[in-house]
Amino acid sequence: MPRPTFESLFAALDDKSADHILAPIENSLFGFVHACFDLLLDSNLYIIGEVIIPISHYLIGCPGASFGMISAVESHPVALEQCRRFLAANPQIQRIAAEDTAGSVAQVVARGDRARAAIAGRSAADKYGGVILHEHLEDSSENYTRFLLLSPAKDFAGGADKLSLVIELPHQPGALHSALEPFARRGIDLLKIEGRPVKGRPWEYCFYLDLRGSANDNEVIDALSELRNSRVETRILGAYRSARVPSE
Amino acid sequence: MPRPTFESLFAALDDKSADHILAPIENSLFGFVHACFDLLLDSNLYIIGEVIIPISHYLIGCPGASFGMISAVESHPVALEQCRRFLAANPQIQRIAAEDTAGSVAQVVARGDRARAAIAGRSAADKYGGVILHEHLEDSSENYTRFLLLSPAKDFAGGADKLSLVIELPHQPGALHSALEPFARRGIDLLKIEGRPVKGRPWEYCFYLDLRGSANDNEVIDALSELRNSRVETRILGAYRSARVPSE
Repeated sequence: MPRPTFESLFAALDDKSADHILAPIENSLFGFVHACFDLLLDSNLYIIGEVIIPISHYLIGCPGASFGMISAVESHPVALEQCRRFLAANPQIQRIAAEDTAGSVAQVVARGDRARAAIAGRSAADKYGGVILHEHLEDSSENYTRFLLLSPAKDFAGGADKLSLVIELPHQPGALHSALEPFARRGIDLLKIEGRPVKGRPWEYCFYLDLRGSANDNEVIDALSELRNSRVETRILGAYRSARVPSE
Repeated sequence: MPRPTFESLFAALDDKSADHILAPIENSLFGFVHACFDLLLDSNLYIIGEVIIPISHYLIGCPGASFGMISAVESHPVALEQCRRFLAANPQIQRIAAEDTAGSVAQVVARGDRARAAIAGRSAADKYGGVILHEHLEDSSENYTRFLLLSPAKDFAGGADKLSLVIELPHQPGALHSALEPFARRGIDLLKIEGRPVKGRPWEYCFYLDLRGSANDNEVIDALSELRNSRVETRILGAYRSARVPSE
């Protein structure tokens, strides 16, 4: 079941209309999806899985539209950002930020304005009866989005091989280096690190880390307890396996 | 002199219509401005200064407009993102992505549509004859944007106390930890680290680092040569002093 905004996606767990949610956290071109990460940090949810989905963008109009008629395009800001080159080459097309990609196709078809198009995946054109006016608008064909499967329960998978955590560091020389030391010394692979500004404290950061390993792995357990003993505030977000959807 | 897009801002140096440009690189709420960083990486420019400017957002309409009339608001996506709470509380207002904040005020005033407003700084209302309909739309009062002063010449300031560089790391356990070691061992303060996806190689990263120090500081010189000797690809982006504009 889709939700129109990240806020309403996360709220679906609060009001029990969903057991789990799938939230985008990172795109290979655009980078981290800060809005989702901040909602995850503010929640009590756990990451229990992830899926990596290849993304292709299509320009979709209402029936009767053609490419030359289009003067405005609407889509989610991240989708617009992934089509920078196409949009720069077509300055006659005004960009409009919408809540989501598929929803903007639904609106374009419902309104029937031939000057208006949406940017979304191919399946949205099929679903809402839109017409594909242009294919593969994305800047790079290596365009993947990583979604996290989030649960209010700590259902960490048995065969987990990936661990996500957040650490908050004091601002002093060597703090990040020291915090990475327990992992580096044990040869634990750091897959990703992402700093986020701490709200209300400009230029201070917490760090999101992805590690190769599981919460039951002794090396990982030792590294985490070493980290906590050095008084680094540490929060385990999840332990899970990665799945990948093949390209179209 | 303003420029409507990041691309045209950077192009102003190529066509010699500017000697220097001031590019936003980071906001204390929103995080890193990836689009500008990518343009900096693709350029041969150097960072020779930075300035940190407090940001307040205002809802600005054309003369005759009032808050209750507004059904659409346009602004730069980063400005819209910084006003999430205001926009969530006013779902009747449609969001439209525009190229820049001040430019959207100019357009709103020029069109004279009382249902349309822009989000921008107070000075844009004065400059283009707009009317302030709502003050301080930003989610947090601790809202600062950091701008980099960029030059095609390597004019590093004598009294520089901040150094920015980019490193590209092999994907192996401990790679980031090892790369930070030369700085940590010398007590060199790491002010910021930001990973960016390497385009065309999903889930590989280069890292942008800000260090406390100057390019003439012996400790820094030693740390950088140690880093290069360990075959980490290293590019110095700049050495500069930080300036801060007081809040309104």
